[in-house]
Amino acid sequence: MSLANAVLAGERLALARLLSQIENDQPSGRTALGELFPYTGKAHLIGVTGAPGTGKSSLVNRLAHHFRHPPPGVPQRTIAIVAVDPSSPFTGGAILGDRVRMRDLSGDPGVFIRSMAARGSLGGLAPATASLVQVFDAAGFEIIIIETVGAGQAEVDIARLAHTTLVVEAPGLGDEIQAIKAGILEIADILVVNKADRPGVENTERALRGMLELAHPTQRKIMHHGQKMTVPVPEEGTIEEKHWVPLILRTVATQGDGVPELVKAIEEHQNFLDITGLRNERDRTRLQTELELLIQGNLVSRWRQKVSQTQYEQVLESLIARQISPHQAVEVLLDGGQRP
Amino acid sequence: MSLANAVLAGERLALARLLSQIENDQPSGRTALGELFPYTGKAHLIGVTGAPGTGKSSLVNRLAHHFRHPPPGVPQRTIAIVAVDPSSPFTGGAILGDRVRMRDLSGDPGVFIRSMAARGSLGGLAPATASLVQVFDAAGFEIIIIETVGAGQAEVDIARLAHTTLVVEAPGLGDEIQAIKAGILEIADILVVNKADRPGVENTERALRGMLELAHPTQRKIMHHGQKMTVPVPEEGTIEEKHWVPLILRTVATQGDGVPELVKAIEEHQNFLDITGLRNERDRTRLQTELELLIQGNLVSRWRQKVSQTQYEQVLESLIARQISPHQAVEVLLDGGQRP
Repeated sequence: MSLANAVLAGERLALARLLSQIENDQPSGRTALGELFPYTGKAHLIGVTGAPGTGKSSLVNRLAHHFRHPPPGVPQRTIAIVAVDPSSPFTGGAILGDRVRMRDLSGDPGVFIRSMAARGSLGGLAPATASLVQVFDAAGFEIIIIETVGAGQAEVDIARLAHTTLVVEAPGLGDEIQAIKAGILEIADILVVNKADRPGVENTERALRGMLELAHPTQRKIMHHGQKMTVPVPEEGTIEEKHWVPLILRTVATQGDGVPELVKAIEEHQNFLDITGLRNERDRTRLQTELELLIQGNLVSRWRQKVSQTQYEQVLESLIARQISPHQAVEVLLDGGQRP
Repeated sequence: MSLANAVLAGERLALARLLSQIENDQPSGRTALGELFPYTGKAHLIGVTGAPGTGKSSLVNRLAHHFRHPPPGVPQRTIAIVAVDPSSPFTGGAILGDRVRMRDLSGDPGVFIRSMAARGSLGGLAPATASLVQVFDAAGFEIIIIETVGAGQAEVDIARLAHTTLVVEAPGLGDEIQAIKAGILEIADILVVNKADRPGVENTERALRGMLELAHPTQRKIMHHGQKMTVPVPEEGTIEEKHWVPLILRTVATQGDGVPELVKAIEEHQNFLDITGLRNERDRTRLQTELELLIQGNLVSRWRQKVSQTQYEQVLESLIARQISPHQAVEVLLDGGQRP
């Protein structure tokens, strides 16, 4: 039985082996991924991101627990977690995180957790994450959570892989954090104020509402006979119909408070995507982004095979000596010309 | 007079115009950059990065002020600041930040501040930042500070542009932040604990020392006749000679406390780079990284011009229909072949 078939048959060991092959960019992994790809497109992908210190991992654990132990009458769902961890090798952060998780969710065959280290080069992380997600999708996991630590561009790119994106905040993380939020708010479907038992939760929520209003105005101020008036933005129109105004929810992940409500909000967003057809649009964007990243990586590696090391070194030396500019260096290297 | 010559002659208006042209990737900007490149390589580049909420901007303002108003006997230096800001357009974070700065440093012809929005595509930010820095360098600014908000990979890439990298921390930003620190510690030359008048400063400093010891061991544990012993790592040897153990300094940027000591530490690091020859190594790495990013961007844009929109759309549709896998799609698009 091929590795791909073993994964389709639900063999966990085969699944783990394939994930490693993909992370290490082995040709066998790529082949299996090609075989599995037709079976993808069924899972609901949830991105969880936010600044450090917000308690994302605890929240993800609780979410997983809730999907595995739903209230009576709600079907249980299988869940995979891809935790993208920017820790460097020497801290072992990823391993520790997994160990804490394993205690909660271990022994449950409906759960699979995989950590990915976020080292690696330019644009390398998002495609690898996309591939892992595809494997879990083909393997039949119904919910896939992509968790990223941090709030940089790489994290935003990864969050874009998801159908439903949760941005996690917490009280008391400083004011400058607002700057970060602005960028990340644009990708948020649900805003979670975790650690909501801490002082300052009202301030955090108010700040988020303020930013949401800027991003998704539900009212607009006009001048009427010289007086300022506030009128609602019209609700009709094709754009408005497809418009999801992000929800703000409070949780205390360590206690499980607010988690059932969060799960309900995720399901509402899932319905919204299905009804409006936005799910297909998101899938399309996601696959297109993945395609473009792969093309970029391929173009670079093909070019590297073509250019001679000697020529490359010569051009680099001229650049360092300031004899040619970076743009001139690119021209020489790509057009195979001589140094000017 | 050409734009490049006007910049070399110290015309601020020409400088501002060129910076805009480069940010907008205009051909005229690229030409001028090529003319200016031989005049680069003289400035000392300082990267300032760290998690949100640490007060980086205030610290950068204070540093600038100190370089402009040095103690008696120390020469005054000109300073440019490139603030890379991940705020999205609608918040106006960058503009507000500039306004606060302008109050402190306005009217001083020896200071130039430029904000860059951190939207923009994959790998696009670092090359643009590198180009702005080159313009300031050629224009004769002696110190260039590259300030980034956040702690993601993009920020690390930008910080790598610098000769001396400051990583700014602050007490009370949570525990999970440790995970972020680990990655960023590897690039830190000086660790600044800002807001050092806040409670918890000892804990923050202790945590940083702990992580530094992991990254830069000054002692090692050995087994000797069955007993654990701690011996110092030998100080001799070529590697050790070039080894800079990051400094940890406390500041209260709003009060200016610790800023003179920080400036002294920056100068020490500058001397260290000069004496060891590491400055040349860093310049080399920086230019090589820039070259590779430019090549990547060029390869993609050249490929885009070659492929027909119709073919691209067809392949994308097959991908979305799960008829071909992403890797198969890449093969079709790059080898100009037919759909399998």
